Amino acid sequence: MSVSGLTEAVDANVKNGSKNLSTWGLEPVPPSPNYDAQKRIITLDALPEPPSERARACIVILCRNSDLNGASKSVKQLEEIFNARYQYPYVYLNELPFTDEFKDAARSWTKSDVQFGLIPHEHWSYPSWVDQEKAAKCRKDMQARNIIYGGVESYRHMCRFNSLFFFQHELLQQFDFYWRVEPDIEFFCTLPYDPFVFMRDNGKVYGFNVMLPEYRETIKTLWPTTLEFMTEHWDLIPEKNSLDAFVDNNGDYNLCHFWSNFEIADMRFFRSKAYTEYGKFLDQTGNFFYERWGDAPVHSLAVAMFLSPDRIHFFEDIGYKHPPYMNCPINPALQQFCRCDPSKSVAHGNVCMDKFLEIYKSR
Amino acid sequence: MSVSGLTEAVDANVKNGSKNLSTWGLEPVPPSPNYDAQKRIITLDALPEPPSERARACIVILCRNSDLNGASKSVKQLEEIFNARYQYPYVYLNELPFTDEFKDAARSWTKSDVQFGLIPHEHWSYPSWVDQEKAAKCRKDMQARNIIYGGVESYRHMCRFNSLFFFQHELLQQFDFYWRVEPDIEFFCTLPYDPFVFMRDNGKVYGFNVMLPEYRETIKTLWPTTLEFMTEHWDLIPEKNSLDAFVDNNGDYNLCHFWSNFEIADMRFFRSKAYTEYGKFLDQTGNFFYERWGDAPVHSLAVAMFLSPDRIHFFEDIGYKHPPYMNCPINPALQQFCRCDPSKSVAHGNVCMDKFLEIYKSR
Repeated sequence: MSVSGLTEAVDANVKNGSKNLSTWGLEPVPPSPNYDAQKRIITLDALPEPPSERARACIVILCRNSDLNGASKSVKQLEEIFNARYQYPYVYLNELPFTDEFKDAARSWTKSDVQFGLIPHEHWSYPSWVDQEKAAKCRKDMQARNIIYGGVESYRHMCRFNSLFFFQHELLQQFDFYWRVEPDIEFFCTLPYDPFVFMRDNGKVYGFNVMLPEYRETIKTLWPTTLEFMTEHWDLIPEKNSLDAFVDNNGDYNLCHFWSNFEIADMRFFRSKAYTEYGKFLDQTGNFFYERWGDAPVHSLAVAMFLSPDRIHFFEDIGYKHPPYMNCPINPALQQFCRCDPSKSVAHGNVCMDKFLEIYKSR
Repeated sequence: MSVSGLTEAVDANVKNGSKNLSTWGLEPVPPSPNYDAQKRIITLDALPEPPSERARACIVILCRNSDLNGASKSVKQLEEIFNARYQYPYVYLNELPFTDEFKDAARSWTKSDVQFGLIPHEHWSYPSWVDQEKAAKCRKDMQARNIIYGGVESYRHMCRFNSLFFFQHELLQQFDFYWRVEPDIEFFCTLPYDPFVFMRDNGKVYGFNVMLPEYRETIKTLWPTTLEFMTEHWDLIPEKNSLDAFVDNNGDYNLCHFWSNFEIADMRFFRSKAYTEYGKFLDQTGNFFYERWGDAPVHSLAVAMFLSPDRIHFFEDIGYKHPPYMNCPINPALQQFCRCDPSKSVAHGNVCMDKFLEIYKSR
């Protein structure tokens, strides 16, 4: 504290003559202690049998046949930290048919049921109202300006699919909850409980792991479009929403978003009238193609508008890396499950997370 | 969010016509799920051997011979959740000699070394400058006003001892860190790591578990006296202190304090020049006796003045009850170590803790 609000004399004196803690004999705060990568952790086999109850949930992996190695890496780790104990089914989705080689491999990584789905053409192609020449011009322009993935056509189909359609896939209709997993990620911590049952029993709708600011250039009109949507569909916005964590003092979007390559969430949210209306409103602009709207800010703004803070859950206990960023729990008891260095974690102490915790605390 | 800062139209509409979440088909947020008291938890014997390194630390228990049963209850639980694995020594302190019966029993509860100390008379009696008749009158008056422990003389000696002297006891001179344990408390969670080594290696000085507001009537002049101290000894207050969590907008003490019946802390802090000066300054007022200053607000205000937030640690993972209040971790991975119902925890969501987390977050 600047000791203002106390006495002015104290305040002035402290400011002028303040001592650091070594005054009274303590060492300075140490840098993070060396992380012991060889330490023994609590693994799945040390845990008691889990309860037999399961949620209506699955693991969803969108990938290509060429992602075989990356998917193998991700799934083997997920099995090791969690799913060998719970055996939730896997659903792989692809815009092209999976090869037998991929299918055989994916089945060999787990004892769980494994399904392979083809994405319907209309979910991975241009809608009639999008001007494909204009889209191509926009890609060129964004690539010239070095905007990340700015020139990549397929990346846009993927973002639009993850924003608007994945939860409509026929293989997912039997499930409420999903865990989104991508190729080439890492998991660091034994997960000693069922996150789907936790979400269900605690009324959680959207679970995340890392929050970051988005590149402004990729979503120039996303916020103005969302404001238009809110003006037109105010009756879909509950008074207890989570917009405070995403809107700055000027009423602008602060670019913060849940990093959607990790999600544990309730698909009934994405299938709801509110989300469906929002998705349609966004899609008709064509800006998934003319700009490069990511599914992360789209999901995040929907969560901000439609969910109260107590519906959102920060999975701080799931050590996770999607290069280059990671979440690694700081709490020393949680660390007993983990092989990761908490000093490398970006999940705490960034502006987006601080802002989120403000509304989360008062949930 | 009141959606102000967005568009006034949206804001007004949402306020007038806001829908709750059931609009789009979700159940209301459920009450806390039923807690399963029979669930299997991760116990000490499921953990790998701990590292052989220990800190210069001990467990301190201030109690009387008549506290035998209460102490037994506390120590047996501490052994079960933590100390059987680490075997830190115990130091029992008493203003009268411990009986052989007590000593034999206390030795039987643990494999650790156990020491028994007598409190020096000058640490548990009236200092020369205190008017004992006035003190007796004050006690009567406070008792008549139904102030908790207001009429109890020994309680005042205890609070003064815990505020000013325990860390001076000869049996504690070989230790830096201590864990304060009282009779008749409960521990609910396996502690899978060494909190002393954690404190030491991370530069933590004061560890707490529960924060609460103090009864104003017991410490009427503690804050004015502390302000006087700061004015006189401004050179002892570092600019990076933690006063913000304890001072309201009017410059008054908000009565929040770390509940000191649980403490894991560094005695070098209490032995420092800054704390020693503060303790003397308080003691000369006689108000440990004329009022009923608790060691909890005294320790807390010292922490607030002399420590930066990064020196303070919230042991959220230590499930703990000093009737009637408890801390029980909410995080579902931490819950795997615990037999306690997180919905009963007072550690989160009270005004003191919220205020503390504000400064802690930005540490």
